[in-house]
Amino acid sequence: MTTIDLNADMGEGFGAWCIGEGIDSQILPLISAANVAAGFHAGDPTTMSRVLREAARHGVAVGVHPSFRDLVGFGRRHIDASADELVDDTLYQLGALRELASREGLRLHHFKLHGALYMHAARDKTYATALAGALSQVAPDLSVYCLAGSALDRAAAEAGLNRVHEFYADRDYDDQGSIILVRRTDALDPQAVAHKVLTACRDGVVESISGRRVAVGFQSVCFHSDTPGALALIRATRETLEQAGFEIRSPRQQAA
Amino acid sequence: MTTIDLNADMGEGFGAWCIGEGIDSQILPLISAANVAAGFHAGDPTTMSRVLREAARHGVAVGVHPSFRDLVGFGRRHIDASADELVDDTLYQLGALRELASREGLRLHHFKLHGALYMHAARDKTYATALAGALSQVAPDLSVYCLAGSALDRAAAEAGLNRVHEFYADRDYDDQGSIILVRRTDALDPQAVAHKVLTACRDGVVESISGRRVAVGFQSVCFHSDTPGALALIRATRETLEQAGFEIRSPRQQAA
Amino acid sequence: MTTIDLNADMGEGFGAWCIGEGIDSQILPLISAANVAAGFHAGDPTTMSRVLREAARHGVAVGVHPSFRDLVGFGRRHIDASADELVDDTLYQLGALRELASREGLRLHHFKLHGALYMHAARDKTYATALAGALSQVAPDLSVYCLAGSALDRAAAEAGLNRVHEFYADRDYDDQGSIILVRRTDALDPQAVAHKVLTACRDGVVESISGRRVAVGFQSVCFHSDTPGALALIRATRETLEQAGFEIRSPRQQAA
Amino acid sequence: MTTIDLNADMGEGFGAWCIGEGIDSQILPLISAANVAAGFHAGDPTTMSRVLREAARHGVAVGVHPSFRDLVGFGRRHIDASADELVDDTLYQLGALRELASREGLRLHHFKLHGALYMHAARDKTYATALAGALSQVAPDLSVYCLAGSALDRAAAEAGLNRVHEFYADRDYDDQGSIILVRRTDALDPQAVAHKVLTACRDGVVESISGRRVAVGFQSVCFHSDTPGALALIRATRETLEQAGFEIRSPRQQAA
Repeated sequence: MTTIDLNADMGEGFGAWCIGEGIDSQILPLISAANVAAGFHAGDPTTMSRVLREAARHGVAVGVHPSFRDLVGFGRRHIDASADELVDDTLYQLGALRELASREGLRLHHFKLHGALYMHAARDKTYATALAGALSQVAPDLSVYCLAGSALDRAAAEAGLNRVHEFYADRDYDDQGSIILVRRTDALDPQAVAHKVLTACRDGVVESISGRRVAVGFQSVCFHSDTPGALALIRATRETLEQAGFEIRSPRQQAA
Repeated sequence: MTTIDLNADMGEGFGAWCIGEGIDSQILPLISAANVAAGFHAGDPTTMSRVLREAARHGVAVGVHPSFRDLVGFGRRHIDASADELVDDTLYQLGALRELASREGLRLHHFKLHGALYMHAARDKTYATALAGALSQVAPDLSVYCLAGSALDRAAAEAGLNRVHEFYADRDYDDQGSIILVRRTDALDPQAVAHKVLTACRDGVVESISGRRVAVGFQSVCFHSDTPGALALIRATRETLEQAGFEIRSPRQQAA
Repeated sequence: MTTIDLNADMGEGFGAWCIGEGIDSQILPLISAANVAAGFHAGDPTTMSRVLREAARHGVAVGVHPSFRDLVGFGRRHIDASADELVDDTLYQLGALRELASREGLRLHHFKLHGALYMHAARDKTYATALAGALSQVAPDLSVYCLAGSALDRAAAEAGLNRVHEFYADRDYDDQGSIILVRRTDALDPQAVAHKVLTACRDGVVESISGRRVAVGFQSVCFHSDTPGALALIRATRETLEQAGFEIRSPRQQAA
Repeated sequence: MTTIDLNADMGEGFGAWCIGEGIDSQILPLISAANVAAGFHAGDPTTMSRVLREAARHGVAVGVHPSFRDLVGFGRRHIDASADELVDDTLYQLGALRELASREGLRLHHFKLHGALYMHAARDKTYATALAGALSQVAPDLSVYCLAGSALDRAAAEAGLNRVHEFYADRDYDDQGSIILVRRTDALDPQAVAHKVLTACRDGVVESISGRRVAVGFQSVCFHSDTPGALALIRATRETLEQAGFEIRSPRQQAA
């Protein structure tokens, strides 16, 4: 591996509110793929358009980041809805972003679910299958960012969609190589994170919370922009990767 | 004129709520163009999809019906927002519907603003121009339904968009041939409405509220599905038009 | 038992939408307690005020009907939220209705949760306990309508709150005397429902779906206003009860 | 004058979002009256409760800060709604906050409209009169914070309500002593602001933008917490006022 994708959530404000004061504009030049909120947990149309324009300026690939309809809960709360309803909601958000991207001359690059809906698609085969089927119909060219081995991963594979597995830079791993998912983490040491990511990219291993070296396979490294000190983490990681000879590129740019 | 388009707003429910109990399903077979609410004044993704499927079944052309963001006010209240913000909102709704339509194998046919935003675009040159510019970029093939002579009509013409002017079956006209816009009207006599529409289609004139015959030019007849007795009005009008030799077809079908 | 309370949900519209066309106004004269939606699943402030005024006119006791924050799902979808957050949401809705009632010179009479939140409080001891504690502090005079034996029933008892147990006129019972909860039922025979309620009120028994007679204890009979033909059910039941000598009164009126 | 009230908007976040990172907690100890958002432009129930608890800890008087229903626009966009609807909306927000305050053992102290609704009540006699009438009925003990000479000021006076006129620390004044209202201002010099406020409090005059000394009368000084550097402005002003012998107290505390 000599190229790697760095992705982060962008545009997770709403109207007058933003996540981190202007941190999006500082993170965008450092990543290769932006997951853009599309209105259900964050992301009004004007914020979406602003992020799209900035991403275009930096040559960052853009994807849609759909969520449960839950502004007050930031899409982090599971809502007990039918698979059909959730697919409808997901396509709605996809189309909304796609239209705004089209105005900016941008073609969407990927699809990555947000928060509780990301977890739901990782576990619920019915939704994962319905979603992958719908995507293969309306957006067969989008890469699906997902957890390796998850329900969505399998369903997307069966539907013939391109999948991008993720390594979570700011989360811990257990002895089975599974991410220990928490809503938010404390501030982390940038050098430690950079070293962890480099090891994972170069050697395909991560040190688990119990200290074991476990294998990990992925094509993209994910950072949470609401992790305290996210900017420093991403900057240190990018520098470390580049110094080690890695190029930061999205899957589409890698393919081109 | 031997063909005429009949259009009505469809899918103006939200979740468990609908406008008229199941009246959409009865109106759809009678019209040629459906204006589909897209989430801001009505129209959750599941309702939108249901309407799209029904419209496809009946061969009815579908268009997007964007609005101010105002569920509680049903998009009937003016909101003091910038032209840029409103264009962003409009494209968001357009894209959302377009994606859901794409899944049903439908290509959108037209664009018609709703309620207070329809009136705003009729009067406000800044918004009308920005909107027409954006549409000519992302959706140059959509017909813009609008009031003849309105700001949007002129801006759409300048942007090279196809315009469809409307005759309002369930509203009165003044001596200048302008519609007297009210939010809602009382129940009307179906035969009187049918006769009024036939006269307008055949002779290009309408009787104003003061009793004068004034000229009207249009390509589509609009019915409000929330007018009391809307179904009877549309049914009587369609029958009367067909008996007089008119064919009910959307502009796209007329062109084909 | 010579008096009985009849309760139904009222004001479950939002802006231009309502449940049943004007059915609230026809049901209100027939019941003794109205559960008024307060904005989270239905019920904008203007609708709430209108229902309150109508209830006042008919001498119907009013209670608040709080819900998960879920307009599109009509409060029927469970949302995975913390007990503290849900208590905050519940008090917010309670206060909003209480203020509008105060303007109409009305004092709230009861508290009844809606839909998925009703079920959550019936099962989740943490929320039930936190809720009962909060109610005993801010609204110790409100009767809590709930399922006999549920978590909320027990928590309310421990908190010293007055509880009102319900018999569901338009739902089936199993052999243990538990309601078989479904979102919505088909149209029912008014005389059969009236007879079932009368038997329950007079003899304290209900026939289960397997045909056994099981004991039921309750102080109020609940009707769902969105059951098809709800008006006819309530009318028949009220007539049957009155002919059998029962007086229709809310718990407060019974106490007075 | 030896005491003066300092007021600021508090709790203007929503779910995961806040205005300024934790700035509320730093401003609260410095002011005597907090205007608490109540859900329509900001302020979910959990955020509201947190602010109320903090205000209680610092002995800060709390008031409700109602707004147009406009999360995405932060209540800064005028919505064309009827006076009756707006009064309903206002009481809804008042009651919601009052209930949450009641749980914290707090009695509301004042009423101050937000953003575009503040301006609407300053200009629109119909709404101002309907609102003052409603407040005199349900909350006659609340002080109404308003612009001296505005429609709401006059209506509140006629309705017998206590009014508190405001001096805007971070806004300019014209030669007539009227505030030049802008949505947001650039960063200001703390010492200049502190001096301006002290002069206004001590001498009853302010220097207008054209350099004239004009008379101003008020009982409270308002700071916008979203003015850049708001914390430094408030701190400098408080220190300057206290050094000059002023005591910072809310009108209720002054009366007690």
